Amino acid sequence: MTVILKGADTASAIRNNLTEAIHAYHLTPCLAVVRVGCKDSDLAYEKGLASTCAKTGIELKVFELPETIEETAFEDAFQKINQDPAIHGILLFRPLPSHLDEKRITQLIDPSKDVDCMNPVNLAKLFMGDTDGFAPCTAEAVIRILDHEGVSLNGAKAVVIGRSLVIGKPLSILLLSRNATVTCCHSRTRDLAGECRGADILISACGAANLVDETIAKGLDASCTAIDVGVNFVDGKMCGDFDFDAVSHYAGKVTPVPGGVGAVTNTVLAAHVVLAACRMAGYPDVKL
Amino acid sequence: MTVILKGADTASAIRNNLTEAIHAYHLTPCLAVVRVGCKDSDLAYEKGLASTCAKTGIELKVFELPETIEETAFEDAFQKINQDPAIHGILLFRPLPSHLDEKRITQLIDPSKDVDCMNPVNLAKLFMGDTDGFAPCTAEAVIRILDHEGVSLNGAKAVVIGRSLVIGKPLSILLLSRNATVTCCHSRTRDLAGECRGADILISACGAANLVDETIAKGLDASCTAIDVGVNFVDGKMCGDFDFDAVSHYAGKVTPVPGGVGAVTNTVLAAHVVLAACRMAGYPDVKL
Repeated sequence: MTVILKGADTASAIRNNLTEAIHAYHLTPCLAVVRVGCKDSDLAYEKGLASTCAKTGIELKVFELPETIEETAFEDAFQKINQDPAIHGILLFRPLPSHLDEKRITQLIDPSKDVDCMNPVNLAKLFMGDTDGFAPCTAEAVIRILDHEGVSLNGAKAVVIGRSLVIGKPLSILLLSRNATVTCCHSRTRDLAGECRGADILISACGAANLVDETIAKGLDASCTAIDVGVNFVDGKMCGDFDFDAVSHYAGKVTPVPGGVGAVTNTVLAAHVVLAACRMAGYPDVKL
Repeated sequence: MTVILKGADTASAIRNNLTEAIHAYHLTPCLAVVRVGCKDSDLAYEKGLASTCAKTGIELKVFELPETIEETAFEDAFQKINQDPAIHGILLFRPLPSHLDEKRITQLIDPSKDVDCMNPVNLAKLFMGDTDGFAPCTAEAVIRILDHEGVSLNGAKAVVIGRSLVIGKPLSILLLSRNATVTCCHSRTRDLAGECRGADILISACGAANLVDETIAKGLDASCTAIDVGVNFVDGKMCGDFDFDAVSHYAGKVTPVPGGVGAVTNTVLAAHVVLAACRMAGYPDVKL
C-alpha cells in the first residue's frame, strides 16, 4: 500500500513551530518582498506566501518597483530595505528585467536577511556545511518532508535527478551533509534507470513530465521514498516529473504534484524569516 | 594490460603551457607563500613548489611570520601582500595557530589572487559553475589528469569516495559540471562495493590505506580509470587509499601513490598563478 506524502502535513507542522517560537521569543518577524513589475507568476507566488505569513504571524511588506526602474534607483530602494532593522528577511523575485545587473544585486543583500539563498555567501555556507546561512527553500523543503515523514537519511542511497543551482546541486549537498550516499543524475546520464535502481530515496527536479516512467519505476523497491519536485503543465494540467501511477505502484512513499513539495516551499521561506528574526533578537541557536 | 598514469606526464604538459603563456603575454608571475612558523610539512610542500615555480618561470616570495604574531599584525602583513600589484597569487599555509581567526582571514584574501580557493567567494563560484574563480588545486589536479589521459567525462559514471571540503565535494561539483553522473560516497555509505561497481571513473580521497580493496576492485571493469588521491603512511612507506595490486589488476588505468595526483597539485597551483597574472595583465580569456 503506497503512502501519499502530502506537503500540507509537513507545512502545518513547521508552521506550528514557527508560531510557538514567535510567541516564546516575543518576535515580530517581517518579510519584505521586492518585486519589479507585476508578472502573473510572481503575483501567484506572492498570494500563497501572504497566506502562509498570515497563518504563521509574519508581517509581509510588498515593495513593488516600476519595471523601468534604473539601476541606481533600484539599488537605493533595495539598500533601504536591506538596512531596515524592522525587516528580517528579503525575497527578491527573479529574473529581474535585463537592464538591471542581477549578479551584482544578488551580492548586495545582507546574508543574514537572505532567506532564499540568493547571495553567493549563503551558497558557500551551504557548501561548507556552515548552518548559519540559509539553504534554497525548495531544496530544503525536500529535506523537511523526509524528516517529517521519518525517512532516515543516514547512510541512505539517495538519487537526485537534476543539477540546477537552486535545487539539484544544493539538495545533493544537503543530503550529503546528512550522511546519505548521493548520486546526482541529469540529462547526460547514460543509464538513468540503472542509477535509480534500489534507491532508498529518489528525487526528481528536472521539469520534464513523465521523465520517471515505468522503466525507471519498476527498479524501485517498496522501501523507496520518491519525491517529485518537477512542475510541468500537460494539456493545461499541472504535473510533476513522475508518471505518478507507475511510481506509486512500486515505491512505498511518494509525493504528489500538486500538493507535495510545492506546498512546503513557502513555509520553509517563512521558517527562514522567523529564524532570521530569532538571530537578530539575540537567539542564534534556535532551530526551527 | 593496466596503464599506470604518472602525474609527472600531466604536470610536464601543464608546465609547458605555462612557460609558453608567460612568454607570449610577457608576464612576470609572482606567487607569495605566507607561512606562520616553520612546520616540517609546510617546508616540504614549499620546497616542491619552489621547484615547480623555478621550472615554470614563476617568482616565489616566501613571507615567514613568527608563530606568536598577533591578529592585527598578521592582518597588516597579509593585507600588504594582498594589495601588492606585483603579487598575482597567494598561498597561505593552514591550519594557522589557534590564536589567529582563520575563518576571518580566509575572507580577507583578494579572490582574484586566491589561487588555492581559500575564500568562500571562490567556493561559491565553483558551486555556481562560474569559471573565473579558482578550484581547490588537488580536486582540479584529478580533472587535469583525466583530461591529459583522454578519459571522457561526458556522461561517464564517476564515483568519488570522500566528501571533504578540499577534495571530495569540489571534485564532485567539477565532475558534474563536465557532465559526469556523480556518486559521492563516504564513511557512512552502506554498500561501497555496490556503488563502485561498473564505474567509468573511480576516485578515492579518504586518507585510509587499503580502503579500496579486492572486494571493491573486482567490481571494476577494464574500462575503468581509477585515481588515488589518498596519502597515507604504512610502516613508514607512503601509500594511497588503493590496494594497488588489486585495483591495477581489474581497472584499465590507475594512478600510483606517490607519483600520481600529488605530482600534479602544485603544478595546478602554478597554473592558477599564471592565470591570475594573465587576468591582471588584461587577458581574462586565456585558458591554461
